[in-house]
Amino acid sequence: MSEKTAYQAACQLFTRHYRYEHLSAIVSWDQATMMPPAGNDARAAAQAELEVLMHATLTDARLGDWLKSAEGEALDARERANLREMRRAWQTANLLPAELVEAKALAGARCEHAWRTQRPANDWQGFLANFREVVKLSREEARLLAEAQGLSRYDALMAQYEPGMKSADIDRLFADIKTWLPGLIQAVRDKQAGESLLRPQGEFPVESQRALGVEVMRKLRFDFDAGRLDVSAHPFCGGVPEDVRLTTRYRTDDFMQSLMGIIHETGHARYEQNLPRDWAHLPAGRARSMGIHESQSLSFEMQLGRHPGFLSLIAPLIREHLGDQPAFAADNLARLYTRVEPSFIRVDADELCYPAHVILRYEIERALIEGDIEPDDIPALWDEKMMNLLGVDTRGNYRNGCLQDIHWTDGSFGYFPSYTLGAMYAAQYFAAMRRAMPTLDADIAAGRLDPVFDWLKENVWTQASFLETAELVRQATGEALNPAHYRAHLQSRYLG
Amino acid sequence: MSEKTAYQAACQLFTRHYRYEHLSAIVSWDQATMMPPAGNDARAAAQAELEVLMHATLTDARLGDWLKSAEGEALDARERANLREMRRAWQTANLLPAELVEAKALAGARCEHAWRTQRPANDWQGFLANFREVVKLSREEARLLAEAQGLSRYDALMAQYEPGMKSADIDRLFADIKTWLPGLIQAVRDKQAGESLLRPQGEFPVESQRALGVEVMRKLRFDFDAGRLDVSAHPFCGGVPEDVRLTTRYRTDDFMQSLMGIIHETGHARYEQNLPRDWAHLPAGRARSMGIHESQSLSFEMQLGRHPGFLSLIAPLIREHLGDQPAFAADNLARLYTRVEPSFIRVDADELCYPAHVILRYEIERALIEGDIEPDDIPALWDEKMMNLLGVDTRGNYRNGCLQDIHWTDGSFGYFPSYTLGAMYAAQYFAAMRRAMPTLDADIAAGRLDPVFDWLKENVWTQASFLETAELVRQATGEALNPAHYRAHLQSRYLG
Repeated sequence: MSEKTAYQAACQLFTRHYRYEHLSAIVSWDQATMMPPAGNDARAAAQAELEVLMHATLTDARLGDWLKSAEGEALDARERANLREMRRAWQTANLLPAELVEAKALAGARCEHAWRTQRPANDWQGFLANFREVVKLSREEARLLAEAQGLSRYDALMAQYEPGMKSADIDRLFADIKTWLPGLIQAVRDKQAGESLLRPQGEFPVESQRALGVEVMRKLRFDFDAGRLDVSAHPFCGGVPEDVRLTTRYRTDDFMQSLMGIIHETGHARYEQNLPRDWAHLPAGRARSMGIHESQSLSFEMQLGRHPGFLSLIAPLIREHLGDQPAFAADNLARLYTRVEPSFIRVDADELCYPAHVILRYEIERALIEGDIEPDDIPALWDEKMMNLLGVDTRGNYRNGCLQDIHWTDGSFGYFPSYTLGAMYAAQYFAAMRRAMPTLDADIAAGRLDPVFDWLKENVWTQASFLETAELVRQATGEALNPAHYRAHLQSRYLG
Repeated sequence: MSEKTAYQAACQLFTRHYRYEHLSAIVSWDQATMMPPAGNDARAAAQAELEVLMHATLTDARLGDWLKSAEGEALDARERANLREMRRAWQTANLLPAELVEAKALAGARCEHAWRTQRPANDWQGFLANFREVVKLSREEARLLAEAQGLSRYDALMAQYEPGMKSADIDRLFADIKTWLPGLIQAVRDKQAGESLLRPQGEFPVESQRALGVEVMRKLRFDFDAGRLDVSAHPFCGGVPEDVRLTTRYRTDDFMQSLMGIIHETGHARYEQNLPRDWAHLPAGRARSMGIHESQSLSFEMQLGRHPGFLSLIAPLIREHLGDQPAFAADNLARLYTRVEPSFIRVDADELCYPAHVILRYEIERALIEGDIEPDDIPALWDEKMMNLLGVDTRGNYRNGCLQDIHWTDGSFGYFPSYTLGAMYAAQYFAAMRRAMPTLDADIAAGRLDPVFDWLKENVWTQASFLETAELVRQATGEALNPAHYRAHLQSRYLG
């Protein structure tokens, strides 16, 4: 037997880490979907112990030497990319002490568990009691990561989700959006004011909605042999590439949000299910970044899901599962799913209002992490920005205001920009697809979805993390991130 | 801050182990109830990695010294019991190399996963291909444990489930049973031949059966805030004391097996849910043994569940959920649930035939582990013993013969005797209860179940592992294990 190379030794350690991640993903999914309430304390302790273990794996004293020696070993391009990704994970882990990792896991679990009852109770003060600790620990994490990497504190957190992206970039992108978005929203609302629109009427039983969701997932080629659809308070796509767990939530008076939520999560799921399986156990084989992940969910939800051709495809399924009514005509469904109406909840927002929600959260969480504001300041800022951006009054309405999202409860600061980056990438992909495939829109309307899936599979899914984000986008679309495609897409769809 | 004692250091390490056990319990439950088929390979690898980690925790080089030093520290009786249990776990773990632990976990997972499709396909040859490896590794485990502890190989495996019990004891108990059981079965069948018996008719929808099961679980005081009921191919009670996961399986043409299965698993569950919560993280706070565990499930299933008074209590619930029919009269239900009819499946066996199934498995698995037979010899032996003990012909019928159980697939050799030990303990408990509470049977019929639960809680559940098994039974019932109570119970119920 030949001697193991340093590269192989490092890969072996990361394979162990990948198996621990598997355990973490499954028990986290269980916590959100299956766990009875009294199980929470023991679960939180077990999950925190696992966080500590995963951190200990990446801070193994031998790993630094292995990564260094591996630089001199003969590696092919993919192995070299994997070495780069292993180094990134190793660097980040080694900047954080185990005590902080454990404390943050426990504080996040406590805050999230309490949030589940505090949100319906509109209990901001109760939430604050746990949330202050989450912010304190996240700031400490940001400080340690920032100092060592020469980044601002917020940028250091954002780099965990979107490596290479800086808040200076985000500021530029968002400042541009703010110049045209309010005007566009107003123009679209004026235009839509004169449109006739039928609202779906009735009770939509959960079982019927679920059956509809499953059939739409099949149309989107979700592999049910390697995944599930369940229910959770906050929808997400979890699990592991080999077993993807996606969730939704149902309201019997409204099936539309849940259905589009399922389409969104199916985008995440297909990315995971189509990552290169023989690389799944190594960092280069995982999803590129959260912005790229959201580019898949938003390719499904926004580009495809709200496409009039796609809606004409699923209209018969909606009628089949929920009964026939005039509102289920394909053209009316297209009007419903492109109706622009500022409202409280980000995940239920329409395509045009969505970026406003993201900009609001970005501006608040960046100030919070940089120490410019304190947790107590959030509601007033939230109210002000929501009024300015969308004209929505959230005063005193914490449940539908700053308590609505799960991201801050467990300290996932720096994630929100990924949503709008994802929307921009998705618009850029579809522009590239249309250049390469001029019949794309007709294909979609005719039920030929494979050209879309094949393009995403070739250009994104199977690329995993072999390329850096900017290079992935450039190879896929022929240019760097270009927000003009996003604006053009919105103008074409909503005023075209 | 005062210096940590050696006892405390050991407890800290076992607390970590307990959190890993939590992860293991939840992902194992998920594997049996939720996981889609394509997830299996990654799951098996993750579970095996966790097994290795748990083994590494107990073989920590410092633990031996801590346990030794702790012997000289000031400990109260419960702490001393905990030290004894920590030592037991440490000794066993240190006799097994990590490679064997991992190989056994992987071989067991492979064999079990394939078994799920091989059983319905009646594919004994396919099963053998995986099973030979499981047997090989279990024999190696038995050899290592046996040599170091001066036990026979089978006894060394059985000690993992029932510490202190030897196959010489089991031989004596089972030899006695074999002298009277066949005659008793015959006498009861002769008596029952003249009885009128109405069989339930109809389709029993799964949702109705589930609602009935949940209501019966509530009557048995299962805490749904700290547990769940789901479906799996082979029913079990898993999870952790803080979050107990029990499962059943439904047939729409027969609700009786599933209902009694739920009652059985609820007995396991209430034991777990009532272990002393402040000791849950340490070995002394866990269930005493698998024989004692089965004594709880069989107290619920056999002593209580087939009690005519209890059946008169749940008869109205059965009618409420499954519709009224003459077969659901309380006295007919009592005749149905005490009907003696030799058949193929152990978990569906009646109370009298059950020990015959266990004796058969014990005799085969002991010979297999001691090396007296090979895996290929099992079907012929199975056929012969099934014919001798119960007059049932299993030739060629592997699916309902030697492929029916899950225990051997993952190498849980040595477990089967626990079932009959449990039945004997349960009969002995109820004899002790009746001595202390002469109105017990009337109480049960009147719906006053708390005297039973209070007795079990005081004498078994809250005792956890503070006492050795023999002492627990002696303190609870005033005498050592006495199989006369078991025989007396069966004679009284079936011929009385």
